[in-house]
Amino acid sequence: MSAFPLTPVSETDVDESAFSEIVARLDRAGVDSIGALGSTGSYAYLTREQRRRVAEVAVRAAGRTPVMVGIGALRTVDVLRHAEDAQAAGASAVLLAPMSYQPLTGEEVFDLYADVTATLSVPLVVYDNPGTTHFTFSDELHGRIAALPRVASIKIPATPADPQRARERVEHLRSHIPSDVTIGVSGDPAAAGGLLAGCDAWYSVLGGLWPDVCLALTRAAQRDDPATASSISDELAPLWKLFGEFGSLRVVSAIAEQMGLVGAANLPKPLQGLPDGARRRVEQVVERLAPVLARH
Amino acid sequence: MSAFPLTPVSETDVDESAFSEIVARLDRAGVDSIGALGSTGSYAYLTREQRRRVAEVAVRAAGRTPVMVGIGALRTVDVLRHAEDAQAAGASAVLLAPMSYQPLTGEEVFDLYADVTATLSVPLVVYDNPGTTHFTFSDELHGRIAALPRVASIKIPATPADPQRARERVEHLRSHIPSDVTIGVSGDPAAAGGLLAGCDAWYSVLGGLWPDVCLALTRAAQRDDPATASSISDELAPLWKLFGEFGSLRVVSAIAEQMGLVGAANLPKPLQGLPDGARRRVEQVVERLAPVLARH
Repeated sequence: MSAFPLTPVSETDVDESAFSEIVARLDRAGVDSIGALGSTGSYAYLTREQRRRVAEVAVRAAGRTPVMVGIGALRTVDVLRHAEDAQAAGASAVLLAPMSYQPLTGEEVFDLYADVTATLSVPLVVYDNPGTTHFTFSDELHGRIAALPRVASIKIPATPADPQRARERVEHLRSHIPSDVTIGVSGDPAAAGGLLAGCDAWYSVLGGLWPDVCLALTRAAQRDDPATASSISDELAPLWKLFGEFGSLRVVSAIAEQMGLVGAANLPKPLQGLPDGARRRVEQVVERLAPVLARH
Repeated sequence: MSAFPLTPVSETDVDESAFSEIVARLDRAGVDSIGALGSTGSYAYLTREQRRRVAEVAVRAAGRTPVMVGIGALRTVDVLRHAEDAQAAGASAVLLAPMSYQPLTGEEVFDLYADVTATLSVPLVVYDNPGTTHFTFSDELHGRIAALPRVASIKIPATPADPQRARERVEHLRSHIPSDVTIGVSGDPAAAGGLLAGCDAWYSVLGGLWPDVCLALTRAAQRDDPATASSISDELAPLWKLFGEFGSLRVVSAIAEQMGLVGAANLPKPLQGLPDGARRRVEQVVERLAPVLARH
């Protein structure tokens, strides 16, 4: 279970001390790895200098937990700079999404990964996130990229809700990639289904905030206890509903604020926190889930 | 007819002398305005410093032609910095698209325009380009934004091909915005239809490369000569087909290279120029259009 923490920001800068404590909490909870500067970590909104500092703070606060750092940018030359900075900061791996402004072709995306892996000395996770990058990978392209040196894992979007179709999805991708490249599910509501369908990892937004319950779900799936994994996910359904409605980032930002982990207005503008009505609904859901959290 | 030039780049920098000549050509052709650092000008891929220099070069090379400068960025604080730089460089107007990584809500986009116009001393053009920003404006939201101070125009995506539906589209938007806010069509294949449907301007990609023929089309529409405007657009149909297939940016980049205006590999990586087969088709179309260009 790789936990993706928020990067709390002020109007112009990063709240480094709040971020450091968020990361340290994850290390204390014993997550398997930490994904700093993922989409939930607002990497796309920060300057090179801010990202360099966030990577350093993450590695320091994470203790012995390995840290993966997001290096995506619209321009290849900037991706290469972020890769350098992440490695210099001590990242154990990097995470790269093919961000786009002009729609990208498959060849352009392949060459981006080829250019980056050619200079990399840590493993790379391919970040397949069509909701933010607006690029859709084919499994053939995944196969070509996964065969590049240093590619270690693919972070895929939500697997289908139907268990049989989820298994087919994972097996189809698996048939295109080298056997030592892992597949990790993202889209938290699909996590239990994805892990039970054969994904090796969960790249988790909620894990960056509530690591214990996410670890309990993951460990259940890993010890082949589908009933427990599914039942934990089902208990979290009211939260998954809010994720679907408002986006997981805005919801975890509101919860982190309610937990006192971050200040108000912690998202990079133009992104805004939830409006008051939605905030109250989040509070009610969190209250309702308190017994679930207490149990794990 | 507002002409949107390419910003030719090398691996890491901008080819300022090529850019300066591209802009000077547009001034000599007598375009109505120049849209520097639009999508065709690759604004989203350049650093603040590069954009500041491009804005300065554009204003200098444009002579007496007014220059509008693109100020879009993912983060509001960066948009404000680009707005400052553009004004300091002597821009006559700025152009702002609601770039997104996390999907934006209508309120977030409204507040972005409110924050930017509050500090602006030149007119602003709202850049509605769902193909690159992945944000879709409602006409109600256009109306609220258009009522903000300094908002002077809206650059809309292609109007419908059917003339009646194009008129309805323009009239519907017009009914939501103040009467002194103009509407300009983009999506070059729709330019003649959009102008004849009542748009006040054409924000033109091809105009940044072949200003004369685009001015001829525009002037015909302005003097209420729909037959001539449509027939010029029809003559350019083979080019519009290539725009649809490869994206207008890659096609004008290839033509500019063939014309000797820019060097090879003039797009910011990961964007790539056209592959060889497509390049030959572009050459053939340009050859076939030579008599059309000679006539205007």
